[in-house]
Amino acid sequence: MNTVIERIRGEAARHRADLNELLRIPSISNNPANKPDMDKAALWLLTRMQELGIKSEIIPTPGHSVVYGEHLEAEGAPTILIYGHYDVQPVDPLELWDTPPFEPHEREGAVFARGSSDDKGQLLIHLFAAQEMLAARGRLPVNLKFLLEGEEEVGSPNLKPFIDANIDRLACDAVMVSDTGFFSREVPSMLYGLRGLCYVEVLLRGPNHDLHSGEFGGAVANPVDALTRMIAALHDGERHVSIPGFYDKVRELQDREREAFAGLPYDEAEYMKDLEVEALEGEKGFTALEQLWARPTLEVNGIWGGYAGEGAKTVLPAEAGAKISCRLVPDQDPDEIADLLEKRLRDLAPPGVSLKFVRHHGGKPFLAEPDDPFVEAGGRAIEKAFSKRPVLVRGGGSVPVTETFQTVLGVPCVMMGVGLPDDRLHSPNEKMDLDQFHKGIEAAAWFLEEAGKIK
Amino acid sequence: MNTVIERIRGEAARHRADLNELLRIPSISNNPANKPDMDKAALWLLTRMQELGIKSEIIPTPGHSVVYGEHLEAEGAPTILIYGHYDVQPVDPLELWDTPPFEPHEREGAVFARGSSDDKGQLLIHLFAAQEMLAARGRLPVNLKFLLEGEEEVGSPNLKPFIDANIDRLACDAVMVSDTGFFSREVPSMLYGLRGLCYVEVLLRGPNHDLHSGEFGGAVANPVDALTRMIAALHDGERHVSIPGFYDKVRELQDREREAFAGLPYDEAEYMKDLEVEALEGEKGFTALEQLWARPTLEVNGIWGGYAGEGAKTVLPAEAGAKISCRLVPDQDPDEIADLLEKRLRDLAPPGVSLKFVRHHGGKPFLAEPDDPFVEAGGRAIEKAFSKRPVLVRGGGSVPVTETFQTVLGVPCVMMGVGLPDDRLHSPNEKMDLDQFHKGIEAAAWFLEEAGKIK
Repeated sequence: MNTVIERIRGEAARHRADLNELLRIPSISNNPANKPDMDKAALWLLTRMQELGIKSEIIPTPGHSVVYGEHLEAEGAPTILIYGHYDVQPVDPLELWDTPPFEPHEREGAVFARGSSDDKGQLLIHLFAAQEMLAARGRLPVNLKFLLEGEEEVGSPNLKPFIDANIDRLACDAVMVSDTGFFSREVPSMLYGLRGLCYVEVLLRGPNHDLHSGEFGGAVANPVDALTRMIAALHDGERHVSIPGFYDKVRELQDREREAFAGLPYDEAEYMKDLEVEALEGEKGFTALEQLWARPTLEVNGIWGGYAGEGAKTVLPAEAGAKISCRLVPDQDPDEIADLLEKRLRDLAPPGVSLKFVRHHGGKPFLAEPDDPFVEAGGRAIEKAFSKRPVLVRGGGSVPVTETFQTVLGVPCVMMGVGLPDDRLHSPNEKMDLDQFHKGIEAAAWFLEEAGKIK
Repeated sequence: MNTVIERIRGEAARHRADLNELLRIPSISNNPANKPDMDKAALWLLTRMQELGIKSEIIPTPGHSVVYGEHLEAEGAPTILIYGHYDVQPVDPLELWDTPPFEPHEREGAVFARGSSDDKGQLLIHLFAAQEMLAARGRLPVNLKFLLEGEEEVGSPNLKPFIDANIDRLACDAVMVSDTGFFSREVPSMLYGLRGLCYVEVLLRGPNHDLHSGEFGGAVANPVDALTRMIAALHDGERHVSIPGFYDKVRELQDREREAFAGLPYDEAEYMKDLEVEALEGEKGFTALEQLWARPTLEVNGIWGGYAGEGAKTVLPAEAGAKISCRLVPDQDPDEIADLLEKRLRDLAPPGVSLKFVRHHGGKPFLAEPDDPFVEAGGRAIEKAFSKRPVLVRGGGSVPVTETFQTVLGVPCVMMGVGLPDDRLHSPNEKMDLDQFHKGIEAAAWFLEEAGKIK
């Protein structure tokens, strides 16, 4: 492995240049105007993979394409399926970016660009690891499959059907996902659990047109006001979610998990300082890490209605709406939670408004076995590259495909994310730490090496 | 008066032609591009008033000019100040007009044009009444002053300073305002009360940047969620405003007012059908007309925060905001109510968010004495012209200048509006009913006659 690691270090400048090339493509999956950019990013990946000798193709779906590749020349060795996504989040509010989101800018030991950490930087570490291993040795210690999707940021609507339709082709011994981060720079970690997601939209309609608030205000139900009341009623005073049945299927934390979380170097004061807030606010009876990793939530992601311009307009708005999402924990089911939420909102809607309930994407929560040999191989790989044994943690976000891989392919899913907590995923000034990026390539190579030893 | 009324009827065609001439001038006060049209409308009025022998001048303000005129030849008789405004609302959406807004078009017994009812048609009835009285008799039964402003549709920013600076010049026994309408065509009415306004904006800030709702949701206060809770807490379950002290200065409805409102032909089913709502929602213990005319309200005019685009974005927003306004009734004070609202919102804001409170414009409520001799003279004038005794009503909107006249000049304000509820003020296809216009001139003449008898 010395030769491989040396080569990885020697090629650092090229890895960076390649990363920047991919980051320059504005592959925002939720905007139809960026469809050509999505195709461009897929083609960029296809070309790179083919240059490496990975048999690759772009496979269309009803949405954005999947880039799929295979390198199956390690007979008798395990097969690893590497998953990543080449699409990125939207960039608004654009004015809050210090440098343009699609002009990668290196400063403070990091590269700043949309998608740098989520997930272009992280999917490339595996491509570069394979590339340098092949260059150094001419062969890989495992069989590799790459599955790179373009719809992760819009809920992967076409990925499950794709997996269902390609079970034989995707057959493997483990799936590797690098789309998360370390507990902190000083505390490398392996993630064994993630929350699921249920994302909906609620639209309220009051009168058939905007009204003059003086002529009509006081007698006619205002949909913005109704919406605020309905949303406020979705939590009680202790920040428990007030939806009948919401907690019924929640798997309670085990004592050893609570103890493990409590042993982590989590500094609440520092956390608040970073966010510039004077207090945290979460479900009563749980620590912040428990709230974030092992408790379900209900969050308003957006709200709108009426006049939001300069100055004053005395309007009684005809419509209002909100985006609402729940983070779910095992064994909650996104469809069941959407049903419960819809029922609750319909119960709360006053008679003077009509309600439309739209379901966006959802995803099931994920929980892995920490002592699975491939998960352990991931742990050893991180230890080799970062010189510290990773701690086992859970995460608050959602990578719904992890649960799909476990269920449909019946294999373990190894989460070897090398991002950092301050990477500002989905926010202005997203960045990828360059030390994490380069060591991540080493860890990815170590993982292939360690996984190759598993019988 | 027979000669006067006959003359008014004989000159109907000319009154209409003159009205159309003024309506052709696009005097939109909020658009700097229409400044020459504003000047043109002022000059048109000046010329007309001078032709009548009214000593008139155009008086510049920091905004649009005031047209001021005097005819003070009825020694010993009362002095009436007639207020009106020659500016009009913008016309968008233009595509919804059946005929162009500044090409007056007569159909269905009405003239359709922007400003026809609000307020050019209504200010001209007083000019034409004076003109025909002078033509028929050579003299007027009262002393007349005209105060015609060009900034009513932009909140009259320069009118109060103008009145303050010209108290002696504007001295009078009563102010006449025709800028409102009848309860219905069949139910002539006199307005004796209007609501005031207190308009504010509240901005909440949570974390210092938008966060990933998975990585942070559950532990960090969400400002949108906080805002919905705060707004929801501003009303109780019976739609009373939950702000300590809010109702302290509210003058309760008198029994005779409740009885008068209850006697009006108000059809709640028809009202709901027009708005396409299945229920009304207002403060418990009051009828819809009481809620609209005599009870204060708190209304959310707009709300925003987080993601409002297509599809889903899993963001925990850093900021949220809302425009909130209260309609006020005597003797509530806009500044005091803003203080109470600010205090209440600060009390409700959870510790994880910071609050900014912005005050927009306000206006005091207006209430006249229904048995004031000049108000009664207005009532008799309407009865003579429309052959029906007008009912006494209040209005839900705000015409802040009415309160200014009462307070600064210390005189009663007579609201003799002859518009109709379906005049579509501020909307496409604004119109002035021609029967109301011509009879309005007769009513204006009768008012001068009746007011002249007041000692």
